[in-house]
Amino acid sequence: MMTSSETSLTTIEDFRRRAKELLSSEGWSFYNDASGRRSTFRDSMAAFDRYVIRPRILRDITQRSLSTTVLGQPISMPICVAPTAAQQFAHPDAEAASAKGEAAMEAADAGVSGIIVSAHGGRHMDGVPAPIDVLAEVVSAVKGRGVEVYMDGGVRSGTDALKALGLGARAVLIGRPALWGLACDGPAGVTKVLSILRFELDTALGISGCTSIQDIPPSLIARKSYL
Amino acid sequence: MMTSSETSLTTIEDFRRRAKELLSSEGWSFYNDASGRRSTFRDSMAAFDRYVIRPRILRDITQRSLSTTVLGQPISMPICVAPTAAQQFAHPDAEAASAKGEAAMEAADAGVSGIIVSAHGGRHMDGVPAPIDVLAEVVSAVKGRGVEVYMDGGVRSGTDALKALGLGARAVLIGRPALWGLACDGPAGVTKVLSILRFELDTALGISGCTSIQDIPPSLIARKSYL
Amino acid sequence: MMTSSETSLTTIEDFRRRAKELLSSEGWSFYNDASGRRSTFRDSMAAFDRYVIRPRILRDITQRSLSTTVLGQPISMPICVAPTAAQQFAHPDAEAASAKGEAAMEAADAGVSGIIVSAHGGRHMDGVPAPIDVLAEVVSAVKGRGVEVYMDGGVRSGTDALKALGLGARAVLIGRPALWGLACDGPAGVTKVLSILRFELDTALGISGCTSIQDIPPSLIARKSYL
Amino acid sequence: MMTSSETSLTTIEDFRRRAKELLSSEGWSFYNDASGRRSTFRDSMAAFDRYVIRPRILRDITQRSLSTTVLGQPISMPICVAPTAAQQFAHPDAEAASAKGEAAMEAADAGVSGIIVSAHGGRHMDGVPAPIDVLAEVVSAVKGRGVEVYMDGGVRSGTDALKALGLGARAVLIGRPALWGLACDGPAGVTKVLSILRFELDTALGISGCTSIQDIPPSLIARKSYL
Repeated sequence: MMTSSETSLTTIEDFRRRAKELLSSEGWSFYNDASGRRSTFRDSMAAFDRYVIRPRILRDITQRSLSTTVLGQPISMPICVAPTAAQQFAHPDAEAASAKGEAAMEAADAGVSGIIVSAHGGRHMDGVPAPIDVLAEVVSAVKGRGVEVYMDGGVRSGTDALKALGLGARAVLIGRPALWGLACDGPAGVTKVLSILRFELDTALGISGCTSIQDIPPSLIARKSYL
Repeated sequence: MMTSSETSLTTIEDFRRRAKELLSSEGWSFYNDASGRRSTFRDSMAAFDRYVIRPRILRDITQRSLSTTVLGQPISMPICVAPTAAQQFAHPDAEAASAKGEAAMEAADAGVSGIIVSAHGGRHMDGVPAPIDVLAEVVSAVKGRGVEVYMDGGVRSGTDALKALGLGARAVLIGRPALWGLACDGPAGVTKVLSILRFELDTALGISGCTSIQDIPPSLIARKSYL
Repeated sequence: MMTSSETSLTTIEDFRRRAKELLSSEGWSFYNDASGRRSTFRDSMAAFDRYVIRPRILRDITQRSLSTTVLGQPISMPICVAPTAAQQFAHPDAEAASAKGEAAMEAADAGVSGIIVSAHGGRHMDGVPAPIDVLAEVVSAVKGRGVEVYMDGGVRSGTDALKALGLGARAVLIGRPALWGLACDGPAGVTKVLSILRFELDTALGISGCTSIQDIPPSLIARKSYL
Repeated sequence: MMTSSETSLTTIEDFRRRAKELLSSEGWSFYNDASGRRSTFRDSMAAFDRYVIRPRILRDITQRSLSTTVLGQPISMPICVAPTAAQQFAHPDAEAASAKGEAAMEAADAGVSGIIVSAHGGRHMDGVPAPIDVLAEVVSAVKGRGVEVYMDGGVRSGTDALKALGLGARAVLIGRPALWGLACDGPAGVTKVLSILRFELDTALGISGCTSIQDIPPSLIARKSYL
């Protein structure tokens, strides 16, 4: 049950730490579980640091909107809770399209309307790439095929989401962060997690000189190739 | 002797930890020994994280087989215990072929039927490359020479084995993991270690969209050049 | 108030440690605060290690000068305290020019006389590049436009300053180091911090074979691309 | 004075640890001192791991010799103690040639017979490259000029020395390791340190398939560019 301390949960990391305190070690282990050496699990988050945001300046950003559509359905922001979102898509295996082009194209050929670039939270098989690292490749593989590409994996902040959107994702899905919200305060905790991400994404969008999701230019995100 | 706790050894890392508990510090030090700054020893394992698996999708993987042949002899899976396997090969020095092409070709010229790409578990000389990092080079150096290439070094999971097979190894050899199995439960421990690797390789093969060792495409493994 | 121990503060790091001791945890947290995962904050300092100084030899460096000008005003050395310096410039958003070319050029088009390449001490938005990593790009973007480029971010030593100057900065600004000086000994502490940086820059300039700021060749600084 | 424990000093690292125990904290700090953030000091050793040895095979290495010459004088092995060796060379500033070509050529033009690629043990100025990282550049800059190139910095094992020799160094110099030997057992300790390095270099030379210093091929050392 929500305690007064919950009022001090202001970042996704705060929710993670609090969830770890509140959950039984079994519960935490289940949430936090990943396969093999957890390389893909850890890299799915660390990989975001290989990309930088290159803000544009001297723009009027007073009016901003985060609304967009997913498969034609309007959504208030391009951040969804993973399981829910996942159920919208035809072939579960399509998630494996994260791994390569000629795979995303096969999914498109198979008639899917959307592809989730995902590593299954690092739980399915260790050794596959971090979703953010293959997102651009998948997006370009299905370009002009009328297939929407979503990304699931490692999003822990609004700047993470902005990086995925800038690299071509229609929306991002969150998994564990939603579970942490649930553990901290039930449905209200999930709402709080989403509102934190919404605030962070709106701020990052504005600082980047963009007024809407559609206004994000491909040049906004650059790979830190020098690292 | 095997205790009830052994029943909970489900990964190679579990066997490593348990072996460390069961062995005398002298015994453990001997098993774990490596030369110099242990750079090659550590890198032989870490190097696997420089390669990613790019699964294929929408394939029927219900029927799978891990069987293959080594020098014409059928084996049930391409994972062997190093010392045993090593004795099958002509020139022990051929292992040094791990270091470069024109060396592998020399071995081929010398008439060897098989080459083990190996760093001798990092015990021989520090500063040589991780076997997985030179495997592809050695495979291409002897291409069409009728020489089989095996890899020994750092394999600790089924995905490690899959990466080596995808890069052209006919089979992989395990050294320390077999010794850890021996330390935990004698011959039965070695069998358990091999059955864990078999299960992990079979799972990784299926998730990757392959039904047999011969079905693994060269494009399955990619270097994480962006790291 | 300055204690005898302050006499032993000989590096910027000494001042940082001492300031942490002297300040309340609230005060320190405020000074040390950064946004998000603090990636940009940490990288702003770590990025300097991606550049190396390539000294020139066999030169007479007995007579050296650190004097230069900022917007036509003579200064005794190209190291200024950030807030003060910042007030000299037209458009605060110009700092966002750190992120990319087309942005620095826009600032130039907007008629600014100077651009501060800055990440706002990592407090503004996490995920933007380390200033030193985009400095050369900004300098080349406004080349021949009569715009002076300054850098603010992560300067903690004279060699850091030399690297920024060698990459084209007209001067560097220091933020937290000045605050640490203030915390340790008020205005006298700021003066001490600046005198340490002056001594270190003068030494680095001499060892590099240069006799003045104008004498620093572009070839002095090289990217450690091999890292 | 040498204690029984000294008999167990079998690696340079053993001597370092023992010297740290035997020396006063002031003495140790003086030996271990380095400038700035100690980046160059640490990287001078770490940089060796960016190079790998690629052994040659199927060679008769039963007869081996480590002898070579320095400025025409025969030496029993290409490993010398830094201060002594340093005194052989004309212009101390020539050490700064570590930083770039155009600099090594200037030294050659100035008529020096030998150039020490050195970072002064990281004590002189932080931010300069690790000697091993610029060695090949300096060697090629003075090619055919009749100038011998030596390297000083970070050599802690026979494989480190072999890497420098393979990259074109005529000999390597050791600084701190000799001081550690001195601290552990006076002149006899220095002799022990040199005999350890001699044994390690001789072993590495043999495993690499070489029978003499002159027999080391440029292709023996490769940059781990994939790291």
